[in-house]
Amino acid sequence: MKYSNAKGTRDFAPEVLSKRKYIMNIIENIFIKYGFLPLETPALEQLDTLTGKYGDEGDKLLFKIINSGDFASKVEDEIWNSKQSDKILKYICEKGLRYDLTVPLARFVANNRNDITFPFKRYQMQPVWRADRPQRGRYREFWQCDADIIGTGNLMSEAEIITLAAEIFNKLDLPVNIFLNNRKILEAIAQTLNITDNFGTFTVLIDKLDKIDFNDLINEFKTLGLNPSQIDFLKNIFSEKYDFNEQSINKILNKLDKNSQAITGCNEFMEILSFVNLLSLDKNLLNIDLSLARGLDYYTGSIIEIKCKNVKIGSISGGGRYDNLTGVFGLPGVSGIGISFGIDRIYDVMEELRLFDNIKINKTKVLLCHFDKKGQLFNFKIADMLRKNGIASEVYADLKKINKQLEYAEKKGIEYVIISGDEEINSQTLTIKNLNSRVQQNIAIDKIVKFFN
Amino acid sequence: MKYSNAKGTRDFAPEVLSKRKYIMNIIENIFIKYGFLPLETPALEQLDTLTGKYGDEGDKLLFKIINSGDFASKVEDEIWNSKQSDKILKYICEKGLRYDLTVPLARFVANNRNDITFPFKRYQMQPVWRADRPQRGRYREFWQCDADIIGTGNLMSEAEIITLAAEIFNKLDLPVNIFLNNRKILEAIAQTLNITDNFGTFTVLIDKLDKIDFNDLINEFKTLGLNPSQIDFLKNIFSEKYDFNEQSINKILNKLDKNSQAITGCNEFMEILSFVNLLSLDKNLLNIDLSLARGLDYYTGSIIEIKCKNVKIGSISGGGRYDNLTGVFGLPGVSGIGISFGIDRIYDVMEELRLFDNIKINKTKVLLCHFDKKGQLFNFKIADMLRKNGIASEVYADLKKINKQLEYAEKKGIEYVIISGDEEINSQTLTIKNLNSRVQQNIAIDKIVKFFN
Repeated sequence: MKYSNAKGTRDFAPEVLSKRKYIMNIIENIFIKYGFLPLETPALEQLDTLTGKYGDEGDKLLFKIINSGDFASKVEDEIWNSKQSDKILKYICEKGLRYDLTVPLARFVANNRNDITFPFKRYQMQPVWRADRPQRGRYREFWQCDADIIGTGNLMSEAEIITLAAEIFNKLDLPVNIFLNNRKILEAIAQTLNITDNFGTFTVLIDKLDKIDFNDLINEFKTLGLNPSQIDFLKNIFSEKYDFNEQSINKILNKLDKNSQAITGCNEFMEILSFVNLLSLDKNLLNIDLSLARGLDYYTGSIIEIKCKNVKIGSISGGGRYDNLTGVFGLPGVSGIGISFGIDRIYDVMEELRLFDNIKINKTKVLLCHFDKKGQLFNFKIADMLRKNGIASEVYADLKKINKQLEYAEKKGIEYVIISGDEEINSQTLTIKNLNSRVQQNIAIDKIVKFFN
Repeated sequence: MKYSNAKGTRDFAPEVLSKRKYIMNIIENIFIKYGFLPLETPALEQLDTLTGKYGDEGDKLLFKIINSGDFASKVEDEIWNSKQSDKILKYICEKGLRYDLTVPLARFVANNRNDITFPFKRYQMQPVWRADRPQRGRYREFWQCDADIIGTGNLMSEAEIITLAAEIFNKLDLPVNIFLNNRKILEAIAQTLNITDNFGTFTVLIDKLDKIDFNDLINEFKTLGLNPSQIDFLKNIFSEKYDFNEQSINKILNKLDKNSQAITGCNEFMEILSFVNLLSLDKNLLNIDLSLARGLDYYTGSIIEIKCKNVKIGSISGGGRYDNLTGVFGLPGVSGIGISFGIDRIYDVMEELRLFDNIKINKTKVLLCHFDKKGQLFNFKIADMLRKNGIASEVYADLKKINKQLEYAEKKGIEYVIISGDEEINSQTLTIKNLNSRVQQNIAIDKIVKFFN
């Protein structure tokens, strides 16, 4: 097809989009209930704002907008004639598309530091763009749904994010486990093993434990210079299951021989636990997973990851605490915690579990059908009354065979049809049929609103 | 500031965004009630899809994305060395940002013609981008809210769009006038004056009548070759006020001496009127305005424009019928009608009329304050209960002076504070204060949910 979508982008047709909106509405309403307020930032940002924030690889994945007008004339001949794309780029592109919602948030907070009341609790649900190679489940334009609490180091926020997430997945009827970790405990493990110099490689490796069995990674762990007893130590600490309770936290502390970073990390666990224990939430959802790393360059304290219980799809939500969100924009020392919900994956899981089957998705309630213009006019007046009473209604727009009209209702998943002919007009009644049950009945016009309520 | 927003773009901070969401929710819910279903298309489109659809001027205003990787290497040396931006562009940019929601809709309909059930009633509320020179009220990134009915020429659709718009502005409490015209009547006027060759210039001129008095445009009309009696004819036809009723339609028909295009246009008015007369809507809102042209290259029949009654700001909504939406994408002969709501202007008018003052905007209902950690834990448990009962609540995240906490509530516009100290914890009661009325009271914990409902 000549006019296809741009690679890695999607149209969301009504049926799919209505379900996505169902998910997003639930998330949004719960965000609001927890005191978060909405923020939206522009899709277009100055490249100055975006570059250097996501590593070299990330910079390459930024979509860049070419300057309007005669862009080439702004480039010195020598540079232009070199034909080196990477050199020329900065002279012909000043703007790009946002890559995530976190950097724009940091820019917003830094720019508006004097107007914002901290702690700043904001949520943001917008698309982001990455010039990644598209593949199954990975898109170039996709949505992020983030909630962040900025400007407080108080660990009540962790407990709040946990119960917020639990309530969202409970409302979505999606059984999940919530896994917690703390970067300080990962650092303690690295210190205990004397591999702090290789901390980056270490975290990349332990992130793999999500998908690969420890035994199959032993050779990779050996490249860090670990001896057999250290490997055993690692295997032991990572393979154990920890509930989120005092006993587990003490066990971890003992394994790490009261390393000072481990003490700090475990104290943070304890503090979070003191808040979590007050919640009505089902504590069985919560686990400590010491092999949880998640982009450690970024997180400095708590790490959170949420996985679906019955479907293997990786994490459907994740987040953590960062200590220096806005430093790069000239506002250092702002601590915060954020969580992000992956709409695409949540949607896929809910489809797989057939959770949408029993959900009332926004759709038209009734189609009014007719045999001729007279019936259409009659229906139009009825539809006006139904709509004024909040009942989503549609009058078939054309004068076509009644079968065509019924087919239209079936295809759009409309539950009821009203079929109006001379008989109905003369008796001022309505013939209404439920397309699911096939039950048909005759109802007086003044009873129809009540029928639907 | 170094990291400013890209020119012509805006951050929407919580207070503004909550009001925008209020407007958009009302529009969306009414769209749904009228049987429209949501569609979203990607921000990124192939430039092939976008170029040539908005005229030369529009093509210049498209934001274009530079190809990833070594873009320069794909350009032949001769072309590259010419340094001619307009020549080089197509070799280094394949994608662009959507300019409106109509062309993406047309692409979607053409691509999915076999899966869509026609008439296709869709709404779409998404940002669009234009590399226009930013000025007051004109942005490079702004939202469009469109509803279209595609694949039927039945004029019931016009009446449906009219009552839909009236209901939206009624619900927004915004007094408006709805102006109707028909391109065929404009063509009849041009035929009567023998200026069909200058039809484009003619419509540009009459569109100016919106802001400039007819007498001040006489010289411009003269350049079309009109003689004084023709100018008088024009002045007469454009300065008259027409209600939307049979009498007005007949008057117009007589003025145009039963020109065949005028007959068709007036018959269409009559047909729309036959539907409108059945509606409960206030008919006084409706007027015919023969000087309404609105981008005539595009519309082929009905033209609709909505203006605010008490604020001079131009149109806040507009639309019309087109006969060949998808022709350029290989699917000819698809008639449809669409309407677009200008969120930015509607927002500005509502601010000017102070309509937000009495509206319940989503915000946190209660802030729970405390003197120490013990109070915070107590509050955290109360907040969990409030949230489970649907009451938007926030526990102050830090341990700061109570004055700081109250200030936070005031700044965020939170109506109630609960202040918890040892006394409250011991008596298991809550001290709650309304920050508007300054009334403070003591309430048992098990009565608090009821207090808010």
